[in-house]
Formats: sequence, structure tokens, C-alpha cells
Amino acid sequence: MSSSPHVPYAGTRESNGVIQALLTDLYQITMAYAYWKSGKMNDKAVFDLYFRRNPFKGEFTLFAGLEECVKLLQNFSFSRSDVEYLKKVMPPTVENEFFQYLSEMTANEVTLWAVDEGTVVFPKVPLLIVEGPLAVVQLLETPLLNLINYASLVATNAMRFRIAAGPGKTLLEFGLRRAQGPDGGLSASRYCYMGGFDGTSNVLAGKMFGIPVRGTHAHAFVTSYNDLSEVKTRVLKRKDNSEEVDFVDLCLKWQKKLSAVMSFLTDQVSEGELVAFISYAQAFPDALLALIDTYDVIRSGLPNFCTVAMALYELGYQAKGVRLDSGDLAYLSFEVRKSWKLVAQKFDVPWFEKLTIVASNDINEDTIHSLNTQGHDIDSFGIGTHLVTCQKQPALGCVFKLVEVNGRPTMKLSEDVEKITIPGRKRAYRLYGHDGTALVDLLVQESKRAYVSPATIELLHQQYWKCGKVMRDLPNLEALRTRALHSMQTIRQDHKRALNPTPYKVSVSANLYTFIHDLWLQNAPIGELS
Amino acid sequence: MSSSPHVPYAGTRESNGVIQALLTDLYQITMAYAYWKSGKMNDKAVFDLYFRRNPFKGEFTLFAGLEECVKLLQNFSFSRSDVEYLKKVMPPTVENEFFQYLSEMTANEVTLWAVDEGTVVFPKVPLLIVEGPLAVVQLLETPLLNLINYASLVATNAMRFRIAAGPGKTLLEFGLRRAQGPDGGLSASRYCYMGGFDGTSNVLAGKMFGIPVRGTHAHAFVTSYNDLSEVKTRVLKRKDNSEEVDFVDLCLKWQKKLSAVMSFLTDQVSEGELVAFISYAQAFPDALLALIDTYDVIRSGLPNFCTVAMALYELGYQAKGVRLDSGDLAYLSFEVRKSWKLVAQKFDVPWFEKLTIVASNDINEDTIHSLNTQGHDIDSFGIGTHLVTCQKQPALGCVFKLVEVNGRPTMKLSEDVEKITIPGRKRAYRLYGHDGTALVDLLVQESKRAYVSPATIELLHQQYWKCGKVMRDLPNLEALRTRALHSMQTIRQDHKRALNPTPYKVSVSANLYTFIHDLWLQNAPIGELS
Repeated sequence: MSSSPHVPYAGTRESNGVIQALLTDLYQITMAYAYWKSGKMNDKAVFDLYFRRNPFKGEFTLFAGLEECVKLLQNFSFSRSDVEYLKKVMPPTVENEFFQYLSEMTANEVTLWAVDEGTVVFPKVPLLIVEGPLAVVQLLETPLLNLINYASLVATNAMRFRIAAGPGKTLLEFGLRRAQGPDGGLSASRYCYMGGFDGTSNVLAGKMFGIPVRGTHAHAFVTSYNDLSEVKTRVLKRKDNSEEVDFVDLCLKWQKKLSAVMSFLTDQVSEGELVAFISYAQAFPDALLALIDTYDVIRSGLPNFCTVAMALYELGYQAKGVRLDSGDLAYLSFEVRKSWKLVAQKFDVPWFEKLTIVASNDINEDTIHSLNTQGHDIDSFGIGTHLVTCQKQPALGCVFKLVEVNGRPTMKLSEDVEKITIPGRKRAYRLYGHDGTALVDLLVQESKRAYVSPATIELLHQQYWKCGKVMRDLPNLEALRTRALHSMQTIRQDHKRALNPTPYKVSVSANLYTFIHDLWLQNAPIGELS
Repeated sequence: MSSSPHVPYAGTRESNGVIQALLTDLYQITMAYAYWKSGKMNDKAVFDLYFRRNPFKGEFTLFAGLEECVKLLQNFSFSRSDVEYLKKVMPPTVENEFFQYLSEMTANEVTLWAVDEGTVVFPKVPLLIVEGPLAVVQLLETPLLNLINYASLVATNAMRFRIAAGPGKTLLEFGLRRAQGPDGGLSASRYCYMGGFDGTSNVLAGKMFGIPVRGTHAHAFVTSYNDLSEVKTRVLKRKDNSEEVDFVDLCLKWQKKLSAVMSFLTDQVSEGELVAFISYAQAFPDALLALIDTYDVIRSGLPNFCTVAMALYELGYQAKGVRLDSGDLAYLSFEVRKSWKLVAQKFDVPWFEKLTIVASNDINEDTIHSLNTQGHDIDSFGIGTHLVTCQKQPALGCVFKLVEVNGRPTMKLSEDVEKITIPGRKRAYRLYGHDGTALVDLLVQESKRAYVSPATIELLHQQYWKCGKVMRDLPNLEALRTRALHSMQTIRQDHKRALNPTPYKVSVSANLYTFIHDLWLQNAPIGELS
């Protein structure tokens, strides 16, 4: 009564959470064998990992996923069962010594240079520069790309939502159920927080990364209640002492009072919904945030919320607010706020009009821009599908290109001009203006190291891994989030706007340009270029 | 020198590969507490999991992810550290007995009815019907949705590529590097195979699920070689005996012969590329599949491939073919085949014109349709980004709706008519015509069980889990793939076509229809409906 996978299915990660070396493309293994067979496996190779275009028709990208890459290097090895599996799928002509070589492989001879995680980055500038034995670095290609591509994509997406919403709004990631698999959901929560979100609904992400977790109740909670007979215990204690009060009676009293003020009919509100809010309030008297669109926001959900909120207040508790999950969010948010103001004035409870309105109906970046244009009174957005699956563009096209072997720069010409690579080992500098604004990224050949004045010029690449050691602190998620928000502030507004943003300039130094041109001529079939 | 997550990061899965119970939304936990607090946690609830629209503007969906759901139920529990974490994030007023209740929770009182995995399914028909204690089933919502949503989406996407390419083409999934996280990549490989693909590049997926793995070499392999001096050993043994031959000389001899026949200039081909193919051939003499677009397909890549392939043949080996990863794939595939025919005739090697052409340049479903229209000579497609991230639509909107509590049907009205749920416990039947074609799915109230003649009517829901036991075989991936291809054959062609497909009919029985209408009237605020 069970399926029969070839091995116990333990997912993509080792017990320490690091992804397995075998999570790679078969051609990395076949190439490793060909390198080994022709004695090239220890050739000193340099690979650049970079992307060619910013995602989402934007002009910036937030770099994320580095910590997972460093941990991959730290843990990189093939288990005995991995090697046994490879023996089965590789042709029988493959020599046994190769499998021995694989089983002893580590990333200890690899050096990793990288942009700091949480930095805003641009096309063509390498995010990672990976140096080391050709066969080993080649094997790292797939897992490194996998770890950087989605992390950077979803962090960038989150930052775009942050920019759209503005700094004052609360942004919550609610995407787990629609994410691309369980780990996709966990990664989304992690990197959306890095990209400037304030919290997640994902409890495991909260536990693992210390991200604030948020959530109250669903429509099912409301529809599961039918009438007042279902209230198990009618009482609630006052906050300041232990006196028990008949909370249901108190709510019904407030329902009557409010119906006059808010002009709703007590026989039009859903009784099941009222009971659901009462039950929730009894469980979380200090945290009532009610989902009010199960039946009818204006005629039922909002009156029921105000009823229970005012009853709570009489016992010394303060409700949090409401969530809207359908309908015209701009209109409904104004209506809700209008009613709250009325109640605030009528009963002299000024805090009541400041309650929170959360909106969460399939919201994307454009929805937020459109809401901003129309005007709205929403305080917080709960964002799921569009955020975590990056619906606008679900993949970032990072590539991993060989740029040097044994000191010889290499270059791929390709049928597509866009796919031509920039050869040679290089470093990138970011030049800042006097006001701290990033002006340009400059790619230079490593040998031509310029004299740099550190106040205005920043070396983008830092050494993160060398000789089997982590060479630099890996900040925690909170620190990366702060860095990301700060890095975004150094980027000029016109690069960040949603509509027709200005491209940020990435320059290739004059020397490097000449060098690329020469190498092109040398590699191109005769007559192709002149 | 390391980050400090709150707990050791072990990913979303337990050591047995099953996802953790804590991979859920916080509101499931807060609702569970409110249910517990009001004594409703053991109310007998029925939830339907279904989707409202087929993905990709199509009219069918392939159901996948069931095995992972059954295993979730089998393993469902909160660990001590989970409960400790929840104590920290829940308000201090939450009673300790609730945490005790959580720590003892299992899914043993839950019953799961489901459509068989690998079946073609349609909107509104429940894929899962989950019955059991309200609080437990509520907690299952998020992980069940997460497991079904992406699995079914990517399996459907794979099936659409299969339909586009036709049964005769080889389809390979190459998406790991662009997938949404490591686990996203693994799930993609698994469910694309179920959806009719023939293999994957993902080695871990091969090891775990027995999927055939494929792959040869990348551009980096080609650019890592420069000239003939790099060949470590010039020899290759003949296949039929152990005689060693100077393989480099043999290749140069064939280069000369072929240059006349194929009209290429020997000083225009890239020497580095030739050496790369020679090295690859020495490592895999029976499996040369060369990537020929690193420099120039016609002037360099194709001549170099033919050179090495004919040299191999002289020693008794047969090459496999080429891969094209850029340029005009239709045109290039014709050019390649034309050259191969020439070689086949000239040297009397008929197999040579039947070699394989693999194409792999950012291919999507539309590319394949367009190639079919233009005509092409490609045998095999390697498909990455568009397949695994489902670029056309990266999320399937499955929902999980409460339809009954303690025998009372429930219904959500919502501000959006589309979001209205179908109340009550139901079952679905699929009616087939005499030729075995599916005609209609019929949703009926469970109590009105019709007399069914099994030759033409199929009950879609089977009991998969009850009283803590798996009630039905979970077939292996190979069997699910066969079932999926068979299930697709029962669906009429016009439902499957890419352009303007006909919607398949899902009917609600007359009794159920009347019942929904009555319940609506009963729940709607007075005056709303009549």
C-alpha cells in the first residue's frame, strides 16, 4: 500500500537544510567525466553568474540567495548512494576511478567572490564569481543558479510591492498555498521579508527565520457557525479584573445601539457571522481582526464587527480591525472607515477610526498602483499568488558562464548576439555621487585594478569562501532586510518607478571593451566580423 | 561566521520527505484555538478542494499531488519544538490545554476521498473531499493546497507540451536551474514526467523517482578547450577489439574528407570546439550528442560534429546527434538534416541521416505550435523555464471550502459571484459515451446516490484514507504517467486543442441545483435575492 520510489524520498535538502550536491543537471556529471578523462578537471576556471535583464520590466534587481550558496560550498559532497546511483545511469564504459574521484570531491579548492546579499544589482555585473578546479565549479552551476534565481526574483518582486505601497503600509506575505511547492513557499516567505515585507502567514518560516507571523481567520471559520445556540460559554472576563460578563448579551446590546447609528437592520446581519466574531473575540479578546466579506460587507460583516468590537471595548479590550477579501477594495475601505468615524464620534472612542483595514483579494503590483490613483483607506496588504509565484515574470534568467581557463579568457559567440559573454576575470565597482546616490557600475579587468577612493567608490565583490572556509559574516535575515532597504535608497527614483523606468548604467572599462573586441575577432569564423 | 536562524534550518520536509505540519498559515492555528475554545473543534466538517478555472486558457487539468497528501495525513503531527514555537507567537491568553491538544493531534479521524492521481479533471468538481474534526481538517487546508496546486499545474503544463509536440517526439525537462527553489525543481521533474515527459536533466529526481535522466554538455565545455595541444591522450580503442587508434589523426582525416562533401573550410571551424567534441567522444564514444551552436552552427559546430561522428563510426561507434540552443531552430534543423543526408549518401551510412536533433532554446508551448506550422526537423525538445515555472500562468487557484458542518450544508456568498461555493457533501460521476469518450461530469448530493451502470459511469471519488489507514494503492510514478496519458485519450480532441478549446461540461444534478438556490435564499440578507 505504498509507492516505490528508488530511494526513501527525503526531499532536496540534507538534514542540515543544505541542498544536496546531486540536485544538478546530468550534463554537469557527464562533463565532469569528460574533463577528468582528458585530464582537464583541475584546470583553473573562472565562472561568472549574472543575469542579462532585470525582471518585471523594471530596472533593478535585489540580490538574494548568497547564504544558501555559501552553505552549499561548505557541505558539497556526493554520498555513497549518490555515487552508486550515478554508476547505474552512466554508460558502463565510464572508469571506476572517476567515481572514486567524485566520492572524494569537496569545494575546498573553490574561491567564491560575491556581491553582498541584499544589495541592489544590475544586468551583466557578476553576482557570483566562482574560481576553482574546472570540474568542481562546473558541477556547482545548477545548484548555484537554482539558489540565486528564485531568491533574487522573489526578493525583487517584494521590493517592487514595497515601493508601490510606500513605506507606511504593512505588507504581509500570504502565498504559501499557491507557491510552487512546499520549499517554494518557504523560500518565498524568507526572501519576501528580505525584500521589505513586514510579516508572513507561513508558520514554519516564522519558526525557522524569526519572521513575524500574522493571521486571524478564514471564510470557513465564519460559515462554520450558524446561530447563537452554538456559543459554548457566553461569558468573557473583563481585562482589568476577573469579573465574568455575559458577552453575548453585551454584544446584542451593542448591536441595537449601533444599528441606529450605522443604519443597519439587526435582522439583516448574519447571525452565524456574528457568532463567529464573538467566538473569535472570546479566544483572542485583544486581537480581533475580522474577515467581513463572507456574506455582505456593508449590511452584515461591518455591523457585526463593530458590534463585537464595542462590546470588547466595554470590557477593556481593543479590537484590531477588519480584512476585506473580495469586492471593490477602494470603495469598501472608504465605507468601512466612514462607519468607524461615525462610531468614533458618536461614542467618543477616537481610536476606533484608526482601526486597521487589511485587503487581500488577489492583489498584484498594478492593483496597488491603481488603488493609489483612485484613493483608498487600506492600511495593510496581504499578498499571495502574484507575489510568491512572481506571476508577472516567474523566472529570473541568471546564467553561469565560463570566462577564463588557466588564465586564458574564454568567450561564447552564439547565434544570438544577446547571449555573447564578457570574457575574463573581472571586478565591479559602484560609483556614488556626493549625495550617496549610485551613479554607475563599472566592470574592469581584474589586472587593471584602479586606485579607488573608498568614500565614493565601492568594490562590489567580496570574498565569501576560500580554502574551505567562510571568509565573511553571513548576516541574519533581519540585517539583510535592513541592508536591502538601505541599498534601495541609494538608487535614484527614476530607476525605481513602475512605468518606463530609466536604465541604470553599467559600463565596461575602455580596456575591457577593447579586449572583448579583440577576443571576438580571434574566435569568430573568418569573414563574420571586421 | 554564520547566520542565526531560530532553529536549525532543515527545510520544509521531515527526514522521510513528508512536509511538516507547521508548513501552514498562522490563521489555521488561531482558528483551531477559537474552535477549541468554543468547543467546536470536533464538529464533523466536510471540505472540498477544487479549482474554478482550468489553467493556461485551456479546458482541462491533470490532477497530481495526491500521494504527497496521503503521506501528509499519515505523518500529520506537531513536534515538541513546533508547539514551543507556537506558545511564543500566540497571545499569552491562549490556554495551555490547547497546546496539549495540538501536541496530541493526528489525522487519524480524518477521511479523505479523492479523484485518482493522474486523472484529467475539470473546474468545480472536488479533487479532494476531506471529512473529519473541524479543527484538524482546517489545519490541513494550507499544506493540502500547496501540495495539489503546483503539482497539478506543472503536470497539466507538461501534458500541454506533450499534446503540442505529438506522441512521436521526445520531451525532456531541463528546468532545474530556473525552478522556484530546489524543491520546486524536484517537484517539476516528478510531475512533468507524470504529465507525459520522457526524461529530466535533474539527477536527484532520477535517483528519487526513477525518472530517466538525460544530458551531455554545455557551452562552457566547448569554450574550456582551445586547441589540439590540450588533448591528453590522442587514442581511442576500437569498439570490437582493444586496438588503440590515433583518434585525433582520424578526426583530421575525416575533417578533410567532409570539407569537400559539406563545403566547409577547415580553417574556419573552431579548433577549440573540435577538441571539445573529440574529448567528449573519447569519454562517451557511444553517446556523442554535441552542442553545436557555441560559435557558428553551419560553419563550425555541424562540420565538427560530423567530423568526430564519422571518425567514431570508423572505430565501430555510432554518435547520437546534436543539440541546438540558439538561432532559428526550424531553419537550422533543416540545414543540419540536409547535411546529414548528404553525408549518409556520400559515405553510404544511412543511419547518419536519422541522427537526433535536440532543440532547447527557451521553448514554450507556442514555440512548438509555431515550429509545427513552419515545419521543422527536430526530434526532441529540451524544455526548461516555461515548463517548470509555468510562465503562462504560474499558479493554479485551488481552494478549500467548508461545505458541511455537523450535517448542515454551508455556503459562502461573497462579494464576487464567482467565489460562491457549492454547499453540501457531494460525489461526482463521469459519464462516458460508447466509444469511451468522457461526455460530462455530474455532481450529485451524496444522499441521492444514483444507480450506476459501471460500464459507462465512473464514480470519480475513491476513499484514500480512513481511520489512520491508507485505503487504496498509491501507484508509482510510471503507472501514474501511463494513467495520465490514458485519461487524456478519453477526452475529446476539441477540449484539448490550444486555440479556443470547447469547455467540457460539468453538471450539477437537478436536486443539488434546487438545494443551492434554497440555501442561498436562506443565507442572503433579506431583499438581496428573490
